[in-house]
Amino acid sequence: MNTFKGLTRLITPQLKRNMSNQVDTLLIPGPVILSDSVQRALDVPSLSHTSPEFGTILQRTLKNTRKLFRADEKKGQAFVIAGSGTLGWDIVGANLINQGDNALVVSTGVFSDFFAECLEAYGANVDKLTAETGESVPLESIRSQLSKKNYKVVTLTHVDTSTAVLTDVKAAADLIHKESPDSYIVVDGVCSIGCEEFEFDKWNIDYCLTASQKAIGAPAGLSISMASQRVIDFVKSDQYKMKSFFTSLKKWTPIMEGYEAGTPKYFATPAIQAINSLDVAIQEILADGLEARWEKHAEISKWFKDKVTNELGLKLVTKYPSECAAHGLTAIYVDEPGKVIGALKANGVVIAGGILPSISTKYIRVGHMGVTACDPSVEYIPTCYKLLKEHT
Amino acid sequence: MNTFKGLTRLITPQLKRNMSNQVDTLLIPGPVILSDSVQRALDVPSLSHTSPEFGTILQRTLKNTRKLFRADEKKGQAFVIAGSGTLGWDIVGANLINQGDNALVVSTGVFSDFFAECLEAYGANVDKLTAETGESVPLESIRSQLSKKNYKVVTLTHVDTSTAVLTDVKAAADLIHKESPDSYIVVDGVCSIGCEEFEFDKWNIDYCLTASQKAIGAPAGLSISMASQRVIDFVKSDQYKMKSFFTSLKKWTPIMEGYEAGTPKYFATPAIQAINSLDVAIQEILADGLEARWEKHAEISKWFKDKVTNELGLKLVTKYPSECAAHGLTAIYVDEPGKVIGALKANGVVIAGGILPSISTKYIRVGHMGVTACDPSVEYIPTCYKLLKEHT
Repeated sequence: MNTFKGLTRLITPQLKRNMSNQVDTLLIPGPVILSDSVQRALDVPSLSHTSPEFGTILQRTLKNTRKLFRADEKKGQAFVIAGSGTLGWDIVGANLINQGDNALVVSTGVFSDFFAECLEAYGANVDKLTAETGESVPLESIRSQLSKKNYKVVTLTHVDTSTAVLTDVKAAADLIHKESPDSYIVVDGVCSIGCEEFEFDKWNIDYCLTASQKAIGAPAGLSISMASQRVIDFVKSDQYKMKSFFTSLKKWTPIMEGYEAGTPKYFATPAIQAINSLDVAIQEILADGLEARWEKHAEISKWFKDKVTNELGLKLVTKYPSECAAHGLTAIYVDEPGKVIGALKANGVVIAGGILPSISTKYIRVGHMGVTACDPSVEYIPTCYKLLKEHT
Repeated sequence: MNTFKGLTRLITPQLKRNMSNQVDTLLIPGPVILSDSVQRALDVPSLSHTSPEFGTILQRTLKNTRKLFRADEKKGQAFVIAGSGTLGWDIVGANLINQGDNALVVSTGVFSDFFAECLEAYGANVDKLTAETGESVPLESIRSQLSKKNYKVVTLTHVDTSTAVLTDVKAAADLIHKESPDSYIVVDGVCSIGCEEFEFDKWNIDYCLTASQKAIGAPAGLSISMASQRVIDFVKSDQYKMKSFFTSLKKWTPIMEGYEAGTPKYFATPAIQAINSLDVAIQEILADGLEARWEKHAEISKWFKDKVTNELGLKLVTKYPSECAAHGLTAIYVDEPGKVIGALKANGVVIAGGILPSISTKYIRVGHMGVTACDPSVEYIPTCYKLLKEHT
């Protein structure tokens, strides 16, 4: 039973048939615990998707999404589409890949590899640079590979949730721009947007995809992304061949432009309640300040990683201390992951197991994103640490 | 301002920044008004997507989804995926169409035409049989077309939301099975599942796609579909070539099989809160009884259509009375649609405009699905009728 303050909420009788009165403290690397305001923002009536009322909500969400990506200086376009993080990979495949195009995947874990599999499904010839487990890919390897072949697309996984490895996107993007200026630089920011420093405009990123349920702190169910003006120009050009429908940026661009300009347009029915909740979540982040959020995630991450490594003497999957340790989650080698996960669950705390195939049965993952990292009134991570101390 | 009983709910202070205290009565053909239980089922904490707690919710949802499609006698598989109705078309294109495959689209409006456009994007050679405006396509036309060419896929739009035309899916499916047994029969049930008689197993349908926000009465944001065992066997076979990722049934089938069997598996993060709400919505439908629901939609539809045509002397877009008049919405020719829509909005009632390009500026659409049709304590449609009487 969960005895931590702040999280436990009484569930109304209407919900009893679906959920128990109390819920565990959710410390997996997404979905994350929602703030009360974000959660309650789901409990709103349906609105017409083209009404001024909903139009205002999505307009604000799109404008604020730019701020979240640091993409409000140049043009480009933000997209909020019902789906999941995975949908973002398909948007890249369906819009930027033609049969036989070369793509370079800079892999730091299993999510990078899934992205590669997705691009291959869309016909890409994928080369993969795979990092040592728990490390990032050396810039020199990227430089060397770029000198061998022309790549239409280069993908960087900002944080790979399987290994908790953080890639230095700025340094990699600088290198790619220099060595291969025509390549589209695509960033998987599913586990980074909201908790890691990211500058879409300044770093000249072409496409960054993320999802609602991690450091943004909103419910799962939305694919959120930002495209550069170069990408938008391409999808509007005669060179663009539409190979899909729901994932086609040619279809979505005028819709999102319309909503952002205050003139709602229809293509596919948006997830009204989820978007209302996302709107509140992004407003909360911006009210705190994005830098302050990055800082809070870095603080809790350092505290937890230092404790786990120094006091418990456990080894992290990610090289630590190092520049490649992500701030939104921690991956920890333990002798018996199943036993540790079970012991924490028995104490009302839910953490995740390993998913990198080569070591999947040897580690656990603890997420510290959103409320868990940023709400000073909660002490989930210290409590989780105490439980780990008892059970590892 | 809305003065109707039942709908108006006070919005908590947390939401005030996003929405006003009162909302209009939403009578568009989707999204629809949610029941209180369905709406409140959104306001639940995030759960781990692979937890037993969420597993139980999605397991029940999938089992009940079969009942909703009348697909619980044969095997096949139900799918609940974050997205919208539109995503279902892409699932058909990405899984059942290879470059150059023939597809026959039986078109009764603009949504049928969008489906055709989607299949073309996936490389299909599409032939289209287009009905007279407001009518269904004669079976004889389908028979004649099937005798000319082999079609891999034949699509039927059960109800085209642009024209309110109902297609006799049973009769068409019987014919297609007889004339072209190898064709996959695909039904767009976005505006029919939950309000129109539909029998997936008995009519031998291969794939039926729908969405959460219409007659199912759940929030927008979920693509819901049912595939026959023939489709599942195909996607698991060596003949299947994966051409996408998020829309690939090869990826989703083991996931949904896992959840339905009580063993949650990961592919893409499910929309936890939306699925919890869908679970409640489907439970409400099944508690009423599916036939009773169909009957209630038919009753309110007949009452409204008779009043509008007989008492107001207005003409419907759909031929009426006829077998091809849908029961979940009514499309009505009026002299000045913008003026009528504005007058109703001023009285707190939101209806929709026309979207069939040839007549888009000449008609209005009124939705009567879900709560509006089935909750005896509300009188939205009689009130809407009174307003129409005053303002047409």
